[in-house]
Amino acid sequence: MTKAMIGIDLGGTNVKTAVVSREGDVLGKDSRPTDAEQGLEAVLDKMVEGVDAALQAAKVQRADVLAAGIGAPGPMNWQTGVVFAPPNLPGWKDVPLARLMSERLQIPVYVDNDANVACYGEFWLGVGRKVDSMVLLTLGTGVGGGIVLMGQLLRGPDGTAGEIGHLCVKRDGRQCNCGAKGCLEQYASVSGMLKTARKRIEQGGLNTLLLEMCGGALDNLTGKMISDAVEQGDTFAKWVMEETGRWLGTGIGSIINLLNPEMVVLGGGMIGAGDVLFNPVRETARAQSFEVPGKRAEIIPAGLGGDAGVIGAAGCALNRVERDAGKGS
Amino acid sequence: MTKAMIGIDLGGTNVKTAVVSREGDVLGKDSRPTDAEQGLEAVLDKMVEGVDAALQAAKVQRADVLAAGIGAPGPMNWQTGVVFAPPNLPGWKDVPLARLMSERLQIPVYVDNDANVACYGEFWLGVGRKVDSMVLLTLGTGVGGGIVLMGQLLRGPDGTAGEIGHLCVKRDGRQCNCGAKGCLEQYASVSGMLKTARKRIEQGGLNTLLLEMCGGALDNLTGKMISDAVEQGDTFAKWVMEETGRWLGTGIGSIINLLNPEMVVLGGGMIGAGDVLFNPVRETARAQSFEVPGKRAEIIPAGLGGDAGVIGAAGCALNRVERDAGKGS
Repeated sequence: MTKAMIGIDLGGTNVKTAVVSREGDVLGKDSRPTDAEQGLEAVLDKMVEGVDAALQAAKVQRADVLAAGIGAPGPMNWQTGVVFAPPNLPGWKDVPLARLMSERLQIPVYVDNDANVACYGEFWLGVGRKVDSMVLLTLGTGVGGGIVLMGQLLRGPDGTAGEIGHLCVKRDGRQCNCGAKGCLEQYASVSGMLKTARKRIEQGGLNTLLLEMCGGALDNLTGKMISDAVEQGDTFAKWVMEETGRWLGTGIGSIINLLNPEMVVLGGGMIGAGDVLFNPVRETARAQSFEVPGKRAEIIPAGLGGDAGVIGAAGCALNRVERDAGKGS
Repeated sequence: MTKAMIGIDLGGTNVKTAVVSREGDVLGKDSRPTDAEQGLEAVLDKMVEGVDAALQAAKVQRADVLAAGIGAPGPMNWQTGVVFAPPNLPGWKDVPLARLMSERLQIPVYVDNDANVACYGEFWLGVGRKVDSMVLLTLGTGVGGGIVLMGQLLRGPDGTAGEIGHLCVKRDGRQCNCGAKGCLEQYASVSGMLKTARKRIEQGGLNTLLLEMCGGALDNLTGKMISDAVEQGDTFAKWVMEETGRWLGTGIGSIINLLNPEMVVLGGGMIGAGDVLFNPVRETARAQSFEVPGKRAEIIPAGLGGDAGVIGAAGCALNRVERDAGKGS
């Protein structure tokens, strides 16, 4: 058989693994808890167990695997596969993850940033499979991102390219955890949306279901409450979602002017809001960008859901294997 | 001899031409008025005259030229070399510039966006010659830009990539000529700097040389007056320049987070201000970006001055000739 690829999505909560053919068929999958609190060795064992389980599900032998790719939390040196000190993997410090996993699996292992890998997954096999350039924004607690240009994942010399959540959309705006001010993430993530809601509610004079839903305690407000209130026709909740969309559209307009991408893909739980979110995103992005590239850039929901990471990790590894082979010839 | 390249920088005021060897030596140059108001044919004639004069200065025959590159004002289709309707070339509408000049010069002609071409010039032979990625911002009446990533000029499908001046640094900020609000250009260009100065002066209570310099008429204020006042130790003028630098640093911080470039190059007349401008730019860019890529990205003045356009146009053409040859083999 043609050799298969392994893709691993290493998160702080779960390790997901997939066996993917070179053509992009997912042959087998596995997901198990990371047990990050048990430290490095335990996590590496979990990853090996996940690989074996996915291979078994796929009915593929280890000997038939060309290489493995890992999407890991940054910062990192993607060239050497060393992961620096990810906040959600306690005890990890300058871990040579590619080498350690390569020793265990006896195949070449490549490490890339998890958000970049998800972007590459959508580019390789998801909604971006027919374009040459795309940008992915993953809307969760924060805003993750990835960029593909000229058919290649943009990593940058430090592997930090694609931090779209940390585009400044308002100088001297909200303080971000990254140390900067006015980052897109502070307005366009779930937590950003909650800040927008709380700030306006605190000004008073509002009639909204949200007050009841959170029992009057604004700290208990969640993204789901906002979605639910929107569905129940709550005007204020709808404004909050739309305002979040306008912030997002502001950032996306900048990206369109900067990169002229064919496609801007939105992923993460928040995209379940549908048109209430997407309409203001599209309107603002068009208003904030030049006409020709603004019309060009399709703004659409991601297609691979939770599989983007494992598929992208396998795809990134395949891409790097092929590039390394090209260099050697 | 090895064949040489021709680079043409087509501006609304002047047509500049250079003959450049494949190794990047400038062998001969010419500059003459565009006479844009005389229409398309006259401008094409001027370009041919410029080429002949530059070849004569370089002592190179037309037969020894491999190809010509033109840096032209956008928007355009760089693949086909059709220039749409540049505001400073009256009467031009969907002009097949590459074809028209190729017929006249009897060599392959490639057209690229003028700001992108200047960026490529600095990348090929200027301050960026040792890096693989860089971003150029040209600070003039507006803010022009160009991006090189993974060793390639980023054009995008519409050739509009690199519009760094139209990155939004303040949602709902100053109205920009492009139709959007809060564009970097509205704060970090010469005209943006003048707006910042006027706005603050209008609030009153200031003691500044600028008032005297412009004869009390704020509309007469120029960038040079601000530079002069800075040199004479005017505190307010210094604040204006620094504030402009902080806006610029805000935009550059975003670019660093997004692209992780090795170098950010500033060009245009404003960079003559030196440290008064560069210090706040660097401080703000660092504060507004992640630590690792923020330390990586050198922020430095451009090196080629007015020659970046002609050199870059020749370099872009050489790059495209070589790429086309690669495809054919």
